[in-house]
Amino acid sequence: MTSHADKQYEQELKNLKNLILKMGGIVEEMVAKSVQSLVDRDSRMAEETISRDKEVNVLEMEIDEACIEMLALRQPAASDLRFITIGLKISKDLERMGDLAVNISERVVEINQEPLLKPYEDIPLMAHQAQTMVKRSLDAFVKRDVAEAQKICEMDDLVDEAKKRIFAELVAMMEKDPQSVSRATRLISISYNLERVADHATNIAEEVIYMVQGRDIRHGMA
Amino acid sequence: MTSHADKQYEQELKNLKNLILKMGGIVEEMVAKSVQSLVDRDSRMAEETISRDKEVNVLEMEIDEACIEMLALRQPAASDLRFITIGLKISKDLERMGDLAVNISERVVEINQEPLLKPYEDIPLMAHQAQTMVKRSLDAFVKRDVAEAQKICEMDDLVDEAKKRIFAELVAMMEKDPQSVSRATRLISISYNLERVADHATNIAEEVIYMVQGRDIRHGMA
Repeated sequence: MTSHADKQYEQELKNLKNLILKMGGIVEEMVAKSVQSLVDRDSRMAEETISRDKEVNVLEMEIDEACIEMLALRQPAASDLRFITIGLKISKDLERMGDLAVNISERVVEINQEPLLKPYEDIPLMAHQAQTMVKRSLDAFVKRDVAEAQKICEMDDLVDEAKKRIFAELVAMMEKDPQSVSRATRLISISYNLERVADHATNIAEEVIYMVQGRDIRHGMA
Repeated sequence: MTSHADKQYEQELKNLKNLILKMGGIVEEMVAKSVQSLVDRDSRMAEETISRDKEVNVLEMEIDEACIEMLALRQPAASDLRFITIGLKISKDLERMGDLAVNISERVVEINQEPLLKPYEDIPLMAHQAQTMVKRSLDAFVKRDVAEAQKICEMDDLVDEAKKRIFAELVAMMEKDPQSVSRATRLISISYNLERVADHATNIAEEVIYMVQGRDIRHGMA
């Protein structure tokens, strides 16, 4: 490869990273705003989040196309090859997270048609944790940082606990007050969606570990 | 490429297809059994489904490794390149579907600790639709069949409608009978998981369309 081609290749890798970080930033913001629109009872904000889904879908396709072009034209070396193929997986995780933020926003619009059930505490906390995990998993990806990726996998337990706490609390509320059922059920659905955002961040973290450590992880899991 | 290398390459592509179909078959069975264990109130069957998750995770890694090796060693031509990169995406969809079947089975174990709430009709039907979509989406993938893929995207609406019907019915039940809350909430969760199985099958179908038609779809969506 000539030096010119080298530089172009470096630039393409950098572009790929930037696209993934851009998509990650949008998805993070969508998750944040979906829960903000719940707390503020702001259905317009929820609608705005719903309308950003297309942006995310287009970015997924741009990332995929960038990956496929690099695979076709650059014959990347082993470590870059893994980086690029994981890029394909991450674009999918991010696209799903965008869908989850849309789901949350749809439930928010429905909930906002009824009076406030209770002040929200656990759900914003859970959303914050999930968002942090998204951000840090992408940092771990671009830095190829296994230690950071491992911390994210541990954070997932906190989110699972929050989901269980929210579920138990809302089930108890519904058993006492049938009027709360349709709102509480939707809040449970929101907490499930947040848990899945965290799951996708954990996926990304696991993929980073796999990317850096290669086959060792596979044997560990088999 | 020599004729020997050609044959080896063909064999590798065939192996990749077989691995994906094998993984798809397992996931389909997991979804079927997760709902069967609900209908039959068979917690042992549910536990068996939960224990198959590892098998699916290992298959995902085998598929990814097969894809990465082909990308590294074979420099596949454009259409095969797309096939292989979509293979990476599909392994992820299937892995998530396995997780969803595990989620369903976990809810079944919990529900089975209480008396039967009502005979299940809509959920088995929804499960059957979701399963059919999984099977047909993989057929569309291996046959690179766009017409079939488009039919699957249409089927997704049926599953969404079933989910809404189940949600409305169970919310009404909970509002009338507080004793039903913990079971009904879990049944709603099961229907959400089934909807997501169908979503992943739709993803696969969309990827097949993208694989065959290439850039055209991208522009259509942008």
